[in-house]
Formats: sequence, structure tokens, C-alpha cells
Amino acid sequence: METKKLAEFMTMNGGEGQYSYAKNSAFQKAGLQITLEFISEEIASKLEVTKLLSNSKVFKIADLGCSIGPNTFIAVQSIIDAVKLKNKSECLNPESIEFQVLFNDLVSNDFNTLFKSLPERQYFAAAVPGTFYGRLFPEGSLHLVHASYTLQFLSEIPKEILDKNSPAWNGGRIHYSKKEVREAYSAQYAKDMDLFLSVRAKEIIPGGFLAALIPILHVGDGPSRNDAFESCIIDMAKEGLLEEDKVDSFNLPVYFPSEDEFKAIIERNEHFTIERTEKTHRAVIPDASKPSVKRYANQLRSGFEKLLKEHFGVGNEVMDELFDRYVEKLIEFGTLSGSHKSFVDFFVLLKRKVQA
Amino acid sequence: METKKLAEFMTMNGGEGQYSYAKNSAFQKAGLQITLEFISEEIASKLEVTKLLSNSKVFKIADLGCSIGPNTFIAVQSIIDAVKLKNKSECLNPESIEFQVLFNDLVSNDFNTLFKSLPERQYFAAAVPGTFYGRLFPEGSLHLVHASYTLQFLSEIPKEILDKNSPAWNGGRIHYSKKEVREAYSAQYAKDMDLFLSVRAKEIIPGGFLAALIPILHVGDGPSRNDAFESCIIDMAKEGLLEEDKVDSFNLPVYFPSEDEFKAIIERNEHFTIERTEKTHRAVIPDASKPSVKRYANQLRSGFEKLLKEHFGVGNEVMDELFDRYVEKLIEFGTLSGSHKSFVDFFVLLKRKVQA
Repeated sequence: METKKLAEFMTMNGGEGQYSYAKNSAFQKAGLQITLEFISEEIASKLEVTKLLSNSKVFKIADLGCSIGPNTFIAVQSIIDAVKLKNKSECLNPESIEFQVLFNDLVSNDFNTLFKSLPERQYFAAAVPGTFYGRLFPEGSLHLVHASYTLQFLSEIPKEILDKNSPAWNGGRIHYSKKEVREAYSAQYAKDMDLFLSVRAKEIIPGGFLAALIPILHVGDGPSRNDAFESCIIDMAKEGLLEEDKVDSFNLPVYFPSEDEFKAIIERNEHFTIERTEKTHRAVIPDASKPSVKRYANQLRSGFEKLLKEHFGVGNEVMDELFDRYVEKLIEFGTLSGSHKSFVDFFVLLKRKVQA
Repeated sequence: METKKLAEFMTMNGGEGQYSYAKNSAFQKAGLQITLEFISEEIASKLEVTKLLSNSKVFKIADLGCSIGPNTFIAVQSIIDAVKLKNKSECLNPESIEFQVLFNDLVSNDFNTLFKSLPERQYFAAAVPGTFYGRLFPEGSLHLVHASYTLQFLSEIPKEILDKNSPAWNGGRIHYSKKEVREAYSAQYAKDMDLFLSVRAKEIIPGGFLAALIPILHVGDGPSRNDAFESCIIDMAKEGLLEEDKVDSFNLPVYFPSEDEFKAIIERNEHFTIERTEKTHRAVIPDASKPSVKRYANQLRSGFEKLLKEHFGVGNEVMDELFDRYVEKLIEFGTLSGSHKSFVDFFVLLKRKVQA
């Protein structure tokens, strides 16, 4: 899979249909709401608004990987409310501060739907298209950057796993299973994250915040939800519903680091101090009933459908079949119950260092 | 027609099809190119870049009514080139300046297509959705605002012309013909322009530029191109292809002021000084051949099709019929030849006053 293709199709389903991200993001919302509390607390205790706004009266927030809403609107409103509260406590005239929110996602994101869904608001809204593994904003122009459930997406599929002559060749599989493949994914993730932190360091004003919520691998979890999905893909290829050689070149462009792995990445960065980390566990679905499992599957569908359709050259019918099978397989594997039922998020709040 | 509806449908056709704005904006491009010269000259002689950038290293440009390209990209690149030249002449290190371009249009604009068409660039791009008859940007945040062929669109249809009991009632017609209707349009235009200037005055930094290109009424022109269009609408209503009572409530939401009328509006504003005005004449179409007339008609179609479809509740077939008739009528009326063949644009460059 080429990087270009990835940027073009690795976006959530747009619009407002049954498989749209807008209708299938309750899971992300639940995780987000927990962490918005953490962000509010850090703003209250550590964000020096008066200092940050000494040169400008506009507080600028960027939400990276915003998709089409509604979660992004909930996040930025919560952040703005917290900053306003902090302003009050710093005896700033809240009327004198304006807010600008920059909504970012890949060029292929459905920004038309995002704009149509914008709520009544007390901030100036703008959208910035492009990958966050590169510069998106002018130097020192942001006060707070938020990225929720989006840093698991890699900038590209590691090249080795697409190379038949490499020990990391991942033919016939679609995610990391064996050691060499996992290592290739891990290396790509580390490279992406280092780049992410260094470009954000340019864009965030000294003293500004970078808050991120990332899904991590829970030791003992195993990649079983992906195993279930992979097994459906392989079955359908065997039955001729998907082309077998296209399975060889398909790999999910997401990576879930371990807690230690992620911590090592943020600890070695030179630009930000770590102000807070939190690990949260929660159930993937409220119960193991079929409707719940189906909702979980639809969520995955809203995220990967565009990419799957493009890569395999298939339409809605094959997607229906794939995700019907996925639901059955999840139930059969017991993947969303027992030890597999919990999902672990890692929250981190970083503060941009004042440059030496 | 409600204002809300207008904001939702008074945008150019999106996408890249045969009736898209992208494929039907050569006329606007030709006008734009003449005036980009004027803007470059004014930047060279009067824009004090060093002073404007004393607090920030980011030069910010907004293009209002940007539609989906390609004209907007040509405009902003030309402006950036001119500012860079000026930087050099002011001995500023050009490397030290970053550019950010804010592309604005109504929420209903096809921003997805705009983003996909963004060229390789040396500026940060963002989109700002919403009507420019209201605040769009933070206070004092812009250095140069550009608005080309977009200020002819009214924020709303004047209420009197929709009122059966008013002397300005415009039943059975779709644009200004009689005096009372023209006066209602004119009043709405003046109100919109006053508002436009006062909100831009908040957003543009003192010393910053506001450049606008507007189509104006050439004395002697008469509204004959609109007459031809209106006559097709009326004919089709008589034949039952369009609903007659919907003709009563349909009016084109555009106004072309006279030169004196427009000058009076900019002269009475308190926020900007007038640095330059230019009047340019040019042919609407290169020749009166049928293919040329058809290109002219497609251009109108790319602009008004969404609104017409929505208002009359009709589809592509009726649109094909309407614009086929329009081509015939333009030829029959000789509307694009002789005294009617020229189109007059008025260019104005304003400079934001330093506040007292």
C-alpha cells in the first residue's frame, strides 16, 4: 500500500449514514470524556494563560485527527470552558480573549460534513487539511494541541513487511503477529512519534500544552480482535470473495504500543516536559450481546471501510459480508468478553519547554 | 427565499464535473489576472511589511468567496510572490517569514474539492466556513484580505420584493427591473457592504490591505443578460415546466451597483483609506459563436444551479432545458454582442487606518 493511498483512504467514513463515523464513535467519545477531565485539571493548575497571551489576545487550539464530529466539538468546547475558568482565576477579562479552533485531519476527511455539523459556538473555526506527521501550522502559533485516538494511525506501512525477501514479510497476514513484523511496526511508530513531537514543538508556543489520548496494548490482551478480523479476510480470500494477492499487500496501518514503549518515546523527546500521564481501563462494549458486538464492528467499519474498498476494489456488498462475518467471529472467539473485554488508553499531557 | 436557504445553496457547483465551478470559471480568472497586477503594484509601493510583522513572523492572507479553485490558488500565490518581493526590498530575510492562507466561503461550499485541489505550496492552508457578512477571523489577525467576484452576492433577498403588498413586489420577475425593486436591491447592497467593511475593519491589522474586484453596472448596458434568463424562466413556468408561484418567490441574490453608487459606499466608510481604484472593461465572451455563448451560460449554471434546483424542486433535466433555452435566447436577443458585449469590473484597494 503506497503512502499516498493511505493518506487518501485512511479516513473515517464521512456523511451521516449508518456506517458514518458520526454515527459510530460512541466508543471514542466515552474514552474522550474521561480524559477531558484530566485536561481541565491541568489547565486549571498549570496553564499560564496570562503569560501565553502576552503577545496576542487569541487563544488557539488545534484538534488533530478531528474527523467529522461530534467528538471533536465536545473536546474543544470542554477545553475552551476550562481555559475561560482559568482566565477568571487569573483575573483576566474573559471578554478580552478570543478563541480560534483549528480542526485538522487528512485531506480525504469529509470536511464538508464537519462544517455542516459545527455547533453554535463562541470561537472562530477553521480547518487545516494534511497529515500531522508534518508541519501544519505557523511557528509558535498554537497554545493547546489535542489529539485523541488518532496517533495509532501510522504515516505509512513499514516497507519491510511488504518485501517478500525480508524476514518481516507479512504475506497472508494483515497485522503484526510474528516478532519481525511487530518490530517493523514498532520502529515505524517510534519514527512517526518522534517526527510528530518535533513538528508540534515548532508549532506550539513555549508553555503551551499537547494533550494526547492513545490506545495501548494491554499485556495479556494479545491482538485477538485483529485476529478475528484477519481470519474473516483470509476466509473470504480462500472463497474467492477477495483477491488473495491483495491480502499479501494489505496491512492495517495502526499500531498499539505497550505502555513502556510509549513512555520511552515521550521521555526521550527534548521539546516537552511530561506533566501528567494516566492509564484508563474500560470495557470495549457494555455487554457481550450481539447488538453490542455489532456496534463494535460498525465502529471498525466506519474507520477502515474506505481503505478496504479501495485496496480490494470491492463495494458495499462485500463489506456487508465481511463485517457480518466479523461479528460472528468475535462472538465465536469470545473476543469481547473475559480477559479480552477491556481496552486500555494512555493519556499524556506535555508542556512545551521554553527554548534555551 | 429564506436567508438560511440562500446560505445553503448560493454556492458554486462543487466537484469536477462539466458544470462545476472548477471547469467554468475562466471568465472570472481573466478578470482576476488583470487586477492581480494592481494588487502587486500596491504591495510594492505601499505595504509596510516590516511594520505589519513587528509582532509576528506570519503573514496572513484571507481569500473570501474562494469557491473550490483554481482561481483562488492563482490569486494567493500572486499575492505571496508580491509580498516576498517587497520583503526583499525591505531587506527582510524572506526565510524568516511564514505565510498562512485562510480560504473562506459559505458552509455549503465544496471544501473537500478545494482541499484535494490544493497545489504544492509554500504556505500553511486553512479553510474558514461562513458568510463574510459577519465575523470570521480573530481581531487584528489578517494582513491582506482579497475578495474577487463575490461581493455581488447579497446576504439576503430584500424583504419588500417578496411582499405582495409592497410597491416593490417583484412577482413574476426574478431580478430588478422597475425602480422600486432596484431601490430595494440597492438598499440591501449598501447595508451588506457597510457591514462587510465594519467586520473586516475588526479583523484586518492597521496598515493591512483589503482588495476587492466587483462587477458593476455599465451605464447603457441594461440588465439584458438577466432579461434573457428571466424570459426563459417565465416561458418554462407558462409551459408548466416550472411552478408559476415559485417564480414569484424567486429572485437572483446578486446586485451590480453603478460606479458612483459603489464609490459612495467606500468613501463614507470610516475604517479604510482608498489607495487605488480602477475600472476595467472587457468582453464577456471572445466572440458571439454558439460555443462561446454556451460557455457563458455554463458559467452562470455553475453558480446558480444549486439554488435553482432547490428553489424549484427540479433536477438535471429541467436545468438542461433551461440553459439550452438560455443559450438560444442570448443569441436571439444579441445580448452578448454589440453594446452589450462588454463587462465592467471595478477594482478597489483599501488600507486599514491606524485606530485613533
